[in-house]
This record gives sequence, structure tokens and C-alpha cells, in this order.
Amino acid sequence: MEPLTHIDRTLSAPALPGGLDTPAVVVDLDRVDANVARMQARLDERGVSLRPHAKTHKSPFFAARQLDAGAVGITVAVLGEAQVMADAGIQDVFVAYPVWAVGAKADRLRELAGRVRLAVGVDSVEGARQLGRALAGAAAGPEVLIELDSGEGRTGTDATRVVAVARAVADAGLTLRGVFTHGGHAYQGPDRVAGAAEDEGSTLGAALHDLRDAGFEVRVVSAGSTPTAVASAAGPVTEERPGTYVFGDRQQANLGGSDPTTLALTVAATVVSTAVPGRCVLDAGAKALAKDKPDWLAGHGVVPMLPGAVIRAVYDHHAVVELAEDTPAPRVGDVVGVVPNHACPVVNLTDELLLTRDGELVERLPVLARGRNR
Amino acid sequence: MEPLTHIDRTLSAPALPGGLDTPAVVVDLDRVDANVARMQARLDERGVSLRPHAKTHKSPFFAARQLDAGAVGITVAVLGEAQVMADAGIQDVFVAYPVWAVGAKADRLRELAGRVRLAVGVDSVEGARQLGRALAGAAAGPEVLIELDSGEGRTGTDATRVVAVARAVADAGLTLRGVFTHGGHAYQGPDRVAGAAEDEGSTLGAALHDLRDAGFEVRVVSAGSTPTAVASAAGPVTEERPGTYVFGDRQQANLGGSDPTTLALTVAATVVSTAVPGRCVLDAGAKALAKDKPDWLAGHGVVPMLPGAVIRAVYDHHAVVELAEDTPAPRVGDVVGVVPNHACPVVNLTDELLLTRDGELVERLPVLARGRNR
Repeated sequence: MEPLTHIDRTLSAPALPGGLDTPAVVVDLDRVDANVARMQARLDERGVSLRPHAKTHKSPFFAARQLDAGAVGITVAVLGEAQVMADAGIQDVFVAYPVWAVGAKADRLRELAGRVRLAVGVDSVEGARQLGRALAGAAAGPEVLIELDSGEGRTGTDATRVVAVARAVADAGLTLRGVFTHGGHAYQGPDRVAGAAEDEGSTLGAALHDLRDAGFEVRVVSAGSTPTAVASAAGPVTEERPGTYVFGDRQQANLGGSDPTTLALTVAATVVSTAVPGRCVLDAGAKALAKDKPDWLAGHGVVPMLPGAVIRAVYDHHAVVELAEDTPAPRVGDVVGVVPNHACPVVNLTDELLLTRDGELVERLPVLARGRNR
Repeated sequence: MEPLTHIDRTLSAPALPGGLDTPAVVVDLDRVDANVARMQARLDERGVSLRPHAKTHKSPFFAARQLDAGAVGITVAVLGEAQVMADAGIQDVFVAYPVWAVGAKADRLRELAGRVRLAVGVDSVEGARQLGRALAGAAAGPEVLIELDSGEGRTGTDATRVVAVARAVADAGLTLRGVFTHGGHAYQGPDRVAGAAEDEGSTLGAALHDLRDAGFEVRVVSAGSTPTAVASAAGPVTEERPGTYVFGDRQQANLGGSDPTTLALTVAATVVSTAVPGRCVLDAGAKALAKDKPDWLAGHGVVPMLPGAVIRAVYDHHAVVELAEDTPAPRVGDVVGVVPNHACPVVNLTDELLLTRDGELVERLPVLARGRNR
């Protein structure tokens, strides 16, 4: 059994209220407030705007707290999330995704652009042209940010094509706001974070140079991800788009993106079986914890109340925990908190978050954009 | 890039209706009907009852079709699924899980036992005692099946303790219906399926022998999982509980549990980026496809319209597809169907299934038990 990391052994999950029907997702509001304030302060110090990614919390409730703390607007991944935020009165939304706007999606895009300050991503000439077709004749259109690939190899054009994409944006009658990237290769491990942050800055800087040389105005240069957000807030970067920092999770703590002692989200689970020696089984499986597991971490989350234990496998409704040899086995019926590997899919799997302060339940919050994934 | 399997290359996804807003989950009803009829016929031939697991479809709509075809009742994993099935008029439900009934869960259990023919699992003396406490004074209680571990190492007592658990069930004033197991080690690869099916039968046979020797009546001997369902329908087994067979998926096709040519569920996705050479990116990410990936399969699903392509990575809202060298690259805006590795979490992630016949949309079905995971 591969060991947990040093960081794993320091993770602190929020205290659980009593009497929970498990599995349940518990969020400590004091820790959320601390996380929100800390990221805002760090970016304020650097003179860089914060536009938090709402795909982590999928909730106008938390977006409003981020905006109150000083965020300039909200980032989302899909139009469905943007619609939920707009319905709740949030006025400034960036869809950081190469939206391909046809059919119902084009209708939704036009409707949304008519009622909030909207921006969307593009990463190709074809995408810009399609946006233009989708918005032809609309009273208001979104502004556009061009996505650059800074080393993740996912979406984003390379810097050599950014001027061609910008020309297509202009030819389509759209307004260019700026450029953005996501140094997602930071998630390949703690030794990749600093390099990914540098890649974000250098890629955006090169694109900015080329665009300005070609006569384009670039008002926003946007980088992002929780692990790279502070490190890349320098040079040409004017805006950061971290998401997971609001709650933190095990992966972020190991990447340096979250303080391991202020993780704000945990999955409460009941020990339902100790029938197999050396193991226990929790009732939070893949339909509660999700299955995100970086290669560089052992297991599917950490259970601080079971020191040294590794969540060896998750099935739809079971997590199989291998217990450390030197710790007492839990009893059937014990309730424990699991720090998930990745908070975002966990929130997308639950209909409600149980909001707490000092271990007491204060509110059951419906996850309004849960399942809004298109 | 590791290759796809021979089976992967034969997978056939349902035809997609036009004009989809993606990602969207499409289900071919004719293929569902064929899958339901085929499993029922195979078990009928063997004189073994079918009690399909509803965690795959989470929908009374499909449960009703399975019952109409001859199933004796429905299996679920959690009380929340059982409640949805009961609300829809389904009268016979087995919660194949070691339910730990305290607080709200105990209340829900009592309520449910009062209105349908209910059975639940236990795998420990403590679990049986807790069930007894939870049901004390209730007008009606569920029957109990004792779970056995047949080699998966997840939940289930071993055969040496089954009589002790049965005595605790009786002492708690509960009625024993029988024993059950899940040969989940079949999912470790195609070479494990036959052995897991044998393990199910031999484990249940040993438990049955010991229980009868100790004077217990055992009416139901239940095995289950889609890959082992037909092979273990022999000897002492009276009931099978496969779930995924209703739709099939890539994993099942590779395990021999589904016909690769009649897979009934696919995730429609749009190509949103071709910016990185040799790759394309789809808008169905982990929040649509889930992240279930057996070690013995390459990638996160198969795209029959992109022969030889491997879904190398999935992020919340992106699937990164490495294209085969000898095939034409898709264009941004193309819509493709993805055969997911595992159908169950896909259904749990979507609010609706698009039901089709002959590639035409016939109904949008809400997934009534989606998110009912406790």
C-alpha cells in the first residue's frame, strides 16, 4: 500500500454536525470566508483582478460572497451555469470555454448576452465565424477572449495563430476583450506548478505582443487555476480565474493551492461494513466522492479521523478503506468526514450543501447550477 | 498510445437525433427492449429469477419495462432510489446494501416498509441488531438477506460467520429471506469473469448449507452483476441482480456482459476545439462521462465515429481525444457519440435521458432517482 503524503497527514476537514443522513456534503462557512478573503488579498496585493470560476461551487450564494469580497465578475464553463448566475442577479460573467454556438445553444447565448455583461472564449477561426453567425442581428453580443494553450494541450490556439483568430473575431463583428489561458499542466504534480505558472505568463505575454503589433486593443490578460493563481499574477497578467480555492480539496493542498488546515468541504460518510478484516467500507462511493484521482496521490480521498488509512477503491455506493495497521478499527455506524481529491465534481453530484459554522448546521443550500453542464 | 481492444473497435453507439444541445445522453429504446428481453430469456431458460439493479437507469420508466418482461422485482442500492421506485408504484424492492438505519434513515426505512414489499441487506451482527432497534414497534418490517463476500473484498461477511449473523437477524425479530453476493472481482478484467461467477455460486452454496444445517429457512439465493449473471445462474442460485445490461457500456462489452452491437446509451458531444494538432476536444467531460476507467482499458470511452481514437483525458468539461494517424480529423462543430466506459455514473450525472427510436427523439425522460444516493 503506497503511503499518503506528508500533506495528506495534515489535512483538516470541517467538523460534522450530529444526526446526518449520509452521504452528505458539509461546508464550513467560516473556512469559506477565510479562503475567499485570502485569495482576494493576495491578488489585490499584486494589483491583479480576481474572477473566480464558479464551476466549483455552482451556487450564486458563493459567487455573491466572492463578488462582495472584491471579485470583478464570475467565470463559468458553460452557458447553463451562466444562466443560473444571471437569474440570481450576477451581472458580469465570462464563459471561459470555446463555445460552439448553434441551435439551442445559439439561442441561449443571444438571450444571455441581452441581459448581462457577457464574455465568451474562442480558440479558432471557425469558432469566431460561428459566433458571428449565431449573433448576427442580435441587439447585444458577448465580448470575446481568445484562448491560448500554455502547455496543457487541451484547448487554446498557439501564439502563432492568435492574430488570425483575432482578425476572424473582428471580421465577425465581435469585440475582442483579451486573451486567456489555463495552465492545467500544474495538476500533473507539485513539481509542475511553478513551471505552469511561468508558462501562463510567457504564453499570454507573447500573444499580447503579437496582437498589439497587429493593432488590436487587449484589455484583459487572464490566467488561472487555483495552484497557479498567485504565482502567475505578474507581468502581463491582469486577471486570475481560480475556482477550487473557495473550498480547497486534497489535490489542491498537495499542490500548494489550498491551506491543508482550512479545507472547507468534506463528505460525511457512515461506516457500513467492517466484515473484511483490515478494511472498512463507507457509504460515500463514486456517486458522492467522484473518481478523480491524480496518479501522484494514493487513493480516492483522505479520512482524517482514520489516520494513515487509504481509500483503495470506490464503487458507485461504496468506498473501500484500507486501514493503517497501528490504528484502531472504526465501528459500523461511525460517521467520518472524507476530504475528497477534487471538490468540483463532488458539488456537481449533490443536490444540497449543508452549510455549517462551528460544527453546527446553519442552512441547507440547494446547488442551483448542479447538472447545468451544457 | 496503447491500442483499443478488438471489442472496442466493434462498438456501435445509437444513432443521434439532429439538433442536439450537447452534451446530452441518448438512449435507443429498441436496443433497451432487446437487451431487457435477452437477459430475461437467458435467465428464464435457466429457471432463475431476474431482479434487475435500478442504479443503472434510476428510472421507474425502465424498471416498469423490466417488470413487464418478467422480472420478479427491483434491486436498488439506497433507500432514496427505493422511495422513487415506490412512489411510481413499484411494489417489490430489495435494497442490496448493508443499510445502517439510524435517525432519518431509520424513519425512511420504516415508512417504506409500510407501503411496499421491502427487503434489505445486512453483513454483520451489529447491522442486524441496529435494524432490529430501528424497526422496533413498526407495523411492518423489511425481510433481510445476508450479504456474503465471494472474493471482491468489499462488503459481505464470510461464510464462517453467516450463521451468527442469521441468529442476530432472528433475535432482532426480523425475517430472513436469504443470502446474496456480488462477484464484483469480475470487473478486474475479462479473464476474471468466469472465476467470479464460480465464486458467487460456491460462496452462496456454502452459506446455504451452513444455514440449513443450523435450521434456517433460506428462500432466496441471489447473485449478480451483468458479466456474471448468466454464468452464475446455476446450482444453488435462485435470483440474479444485473443492472448495466439494460443499456450496456464499453466495460461490459469488453467483459462479455453486453453485445457490442446493441449498446443502448451514448453521450452526444460536440467537437469544440481542434487547436492542438493530432487531437480534438469534446464538450463531454467528467461531469458528463464520469471518470470510471478500468486499468485494463485505454482511455475514457470510445468514439465509434472516430475509429482508433483514444479519449486520453477528461476534465470537468473537456474530453481530450488523441486521433488515430490514419483517419481524417473531425471539424469543430461536428457532433459525435461517445460510448462511456460505465453507464451507471453517466445516468446519475444527467437530469434527462433523450429517448430515441430509429435515431428520432421520441421523449425526454427525467431521471427521477438521479442524485438519490442515500
